[in-house]
Amino acid sequence: MTRIGIIGSKGRMGGALQQAIADAGHDYAGGADQGDDVSALAAKADVLVDFSAPAALQANLDAAIAAGVPVAIGTTGLDDTHHTAIDKAAQQIAVLQTGNTSHGVTLLAHLVEQAASRLGDDWDIEIVEMHHRMKVDAPSGTALLLGEAAAKGRGIDLAANSERGRDGQTGARGQGAIGFASLRGGTVAGDHSVTFAGNEERLTLTHNAENRMIFARGAVKAAEWLVGRAAGRYTMPQVLDL
Amino acid sequence: MTRIGIIGSKGRMGGALQQAIADAGHDYAGGADQGDDVSALAAKADVLVDFSAPAALQANLDAAIAAGVPVAIGTTGLDDTHHTAIDKAAQQIAVLQTGNTSHGVTLLAHLVEQAASRLGDDWDIEIVEMHHRMKVDAPSGTALLLGEAAAKGRGIDLAANSERGRDGQTGARGQGAIGFASLRGGTVAGDHSVTFAGNEERLTLTHNAENRMIFARGAVKAAEWLVGRAAGRYTMPQVLDL
Amino acid sequence: MTRIGIIGSKGRMGGALQQAIADAGHDYAGGADQGDDVSALAAKADVLVDFSAPAALQANLDAAIAAGVPVAIGTTGLDDTHHTAIDKAAQQIAVLQTGNTSHGVTLLAHLVEQAASRLGDDWDIEIVEMHHRMKVDAPSGTALLLGEAAAKGRGIDLAANSERGRDGQTGARGQGAIGFASLRGGTVAGDHSVTFAGNEERLTLTHNAENRMIFARGAVKAAEWLVGRAAGRYTMPQVLDL
Amino acid sequence: MTRIGIIGSKGRMGGALQQAIADAGHDYAGGADQGDDVSALAAKADVLVDFSAPAALQANLDAAIAAGVPVAIGTTGLDDTHHTAIDKAAQQIAVLQTGNTSHGVTLLAHLVEQAASRLGDDWDIEIVEMHHRMKVDAPSGTALLLGEAAAKGRGIDLAANSERGRDGQTGARGQGAIGFASLRGGTVAGDHSVTFAGNEERLTLTHNAENRMIFARGAVKAAEWLVGRAAGRYTMPQVLDL
Repeated sequence: MTRIGIIGSKGRMGGALQQAIADAGHDYAGGADQGDDVSALAAKADVLVDFSAPAALQANLDAAIAAGVPVAIGTTGLDDTHHTAIDKAAQQIAVLQTGNTSHGVTLLAHLVEQAASRLGDDWDIEIVEMHHRMKVDAPSGTALLLGEAAAKGRGIDLAANSERGRDGQTGARGQGAIGFASLRGGTVAGDHSVTFAGNEERLTLTHNAENRMIFARGAVKAAEWLVGRAAGRYTMPQVLDL
Repeated sequence: MTRIGIIGSKGRMGGALQQAIADAGHDYAGGADQGDDVSALAAKADVLVDFSAPAALQANLDAAIAAGVPVAIGTTGLDDTHHTAIDKAAQQIAVLQTGNTSHGVTLLAHLVEQAASRLGDDWDIEIVEMHHRMKVDAPSGTALLLGEAAAKGRGIDLAANSERGRDGQTGARGQGAIGFASLRGGTVAGDHSVTFAGNEERLTLTHNAENRMIFARGAVKAAEWLVGRAAGRYTMPQVLDL
Repeated sequence: MTRIGIIGSKGRMGGALQQAIADAGHDYAGGADQGDDVSALAAKADVLVDFSAPAALQANLDAAIAAGVPVAIGTTGLDDTHHTAIDKAAQQIAVLQTGNTSHGVTLLAHLVEQAASRLGDDWDIEIVEMHHRMKVDAPSGTALLLGEAAAKGRGIDLAANSERGRDGQTGARGQGAIGFASLRGGTVAGDHSVTFAGNEERLTLTHNAENRMIFARGAVKAAEWLVGRAAGRYTMPQVLDL
Repeated sequence: MTRIGIIGSKGRMGGALQQAIADAGHDYAGGADQGDDVSALAAKADVLVDFSAPAALQANLDAAIAAGVPVAIGTTGLDDTHHTAIDKAAQQIAVLQTGNTSHGVTLLAHLVEQAASRLGDDWDIEIVEMHHRMKVDAPSGTALLLGEAAAKGRGIDLAANSERGRDGQTGARGQGAIGFASLRGGTVAGDHSVTFAGNEERLTLTHNAENRMIFARGAVKAAEWLVGRAAGRYTMPQVLDL
């Protein structure tokens, strides 16, 4: 039985995480939210799960390092500075960061990378995602994660090859580009699809999440897996042995 | 047997139109392309089909009026000026203009209008289209036609309620907005879907075109129907009796 | 505030119904399950919602008639005998029976009927549904409801024009037939799609349910609507004013 | 430049194959159809492509062996007897047999096998295909090919774990079963999807063929690849280096 603390326990994922901790037979070590002392939480937990906000990341990492506990990070919207901070923390503790903790999306990214590596750039790649009406950023962190997988498979740089927010006189599609489109509406937990559009045929790999429990279960699985690991930066494919 | 002339006979739709004319047992009166004299074509045709370019529209209408023959217009990318010109021509000849000549899309627009009129604005509307990699504008004319149908059903103005090209920090979705997203890739003839995303349920109406023949067949059907009609501006739903 | 009693309160829909009753600000009058006295429940309710089993239907109707309260029936798997019993009960009380209580599916059926009435039988109709792995019958009641809507729109008899369970040497598709296919897996709450497949184009109308709350909300809406109605048999399109 | 002969040159694939041979810059060595002498064709070809009928397979193989030319077989509906005949022929000539010659489906099968090997049997597998209204057998050869890939990935026997033609009181889904469903309608060249339905999430891998040219191109690619190969039985993944 593992004691798991949640940073961001009152956010959109908080309730689902607490239920997943209980479902898996673990001990909920408590939550820390904006203004709370993460160090106190870290002191009584075996591992932390962080679904808070980018601005809180550095303080959260510092508290985890001080207490010597690993952290699974599911916060989205991270930039290069945050990734550098994670890399640095990973020299002292075990850290896992991912744009999506679900089993299905982790496998999807693996399949996307493989498909991209086996299809030439006469197969155009388009990534579409749909999320609930309250989501404030586009594309989703998961769409970007899938874009990175496609770019890696194809051996190109994603940022230099993205087509986002098409509107108006766009001109013909760029050879080798990876396109992104974002739909918003209703209460959709998260749908993602990656299409490889070739000459007269299409291959499409899709993931549908029915609700947020799959992300919570995956985060708890990652937390379990991190306990007792050596310092380092880990990934969901390692947790799921893909 | 009707003599049908094609303006834009060497464009993407030209070959399909000629085949559709032959398949329907009509007589191909000839084609006029950039630099050609449309008046000469109009003089030997019972009806014209125009899939050329916005810039040529006024001259095409003038030639049709001079010859007293009706015109079915499938050219996309028209603006208010063009629509005013069509309205004016329709005082003298029968004119039909549409963003999509296919039976399926015409019916789809009808169903979208009905669904929009029966669902409140807690059902978010999202329109997605996919076309081949060479298409230069976004959203497609058909996506806009479907957006107009949705706006009409809901009793709102489309331009004032569109969300296009989402990218970056977009904020939450606007209540009552109609979203558009455009995918490009491969050789896709044209896929369109309109999603009504409510609380915990979604209704999606989709059309898939396998190739351009459906557009050519619909244009020929419209041309047939226009022959002998009184001056006026007509629509595809009238042709198909929807 | 309406007092709503649930017949079948411990079944798959029971919990969702109780939550929907509370969410709508109504009073939960209690539940009756196998072996319980429905009369006692009927006596203290303004309206009953029945999601029990076909075998219990007659007794449930009798109890409702004795107490003079209306009933909304969502039980699936009913046969002609059950429908005759409902018609008879409807001479004394207000009764509504439906294969699907959701707003979206009710509208979908309306759109399917309209599309079927406007497309000739060179547009093949195929109905596909997916439900969770525990579902024991195929096609779903909702798929059949959609098939009835398509048959009505086309003016044909569904039973005489169904193609179900295709497997092996089936021969070519029957002209004018309505095909059904059933997928089972995972925890899917219910997806349905109706495809009209024409020559080189397809029109597909789809509904996705994220979970069972939409059915519970619709049933509660139907129950509210029934209170105070004259004896008669009513339908979901009437409740939703479609 | 390779001389390619077509067995079944007047069938559904015949025209597409001739065009693909021309497009690839090869030489069409001629066709042999029912009643024709395949030996004469084999004598003037470097390789044969067979899209005829199961009943003709043995004679076709005999003619190829006599002439010492390889054969790419795309005929569907083969049974164990035919496969034994192919294995035997492969001791003397290079033979490739496949249920689908397209690049996309070959890669799809590879991805399906990988996904199946990485997901436990709490992920239900469902395979759906749609083809034009004239197709006489169900499921399609490609659906079965994908089922074999899934079964291989999961380490089970497909025949012993298939659920086909669900209709009526089916009972709950079998643990570990692979389900098949077949849709028929319109002019659909071939759509296939494989869904892995887990707890509250789904992964779906889909292929859409716009027309038959992709199959013809793949068959010609296979034929090219076979020329000069040692005797043996080969597969599309080898041709495409997957």
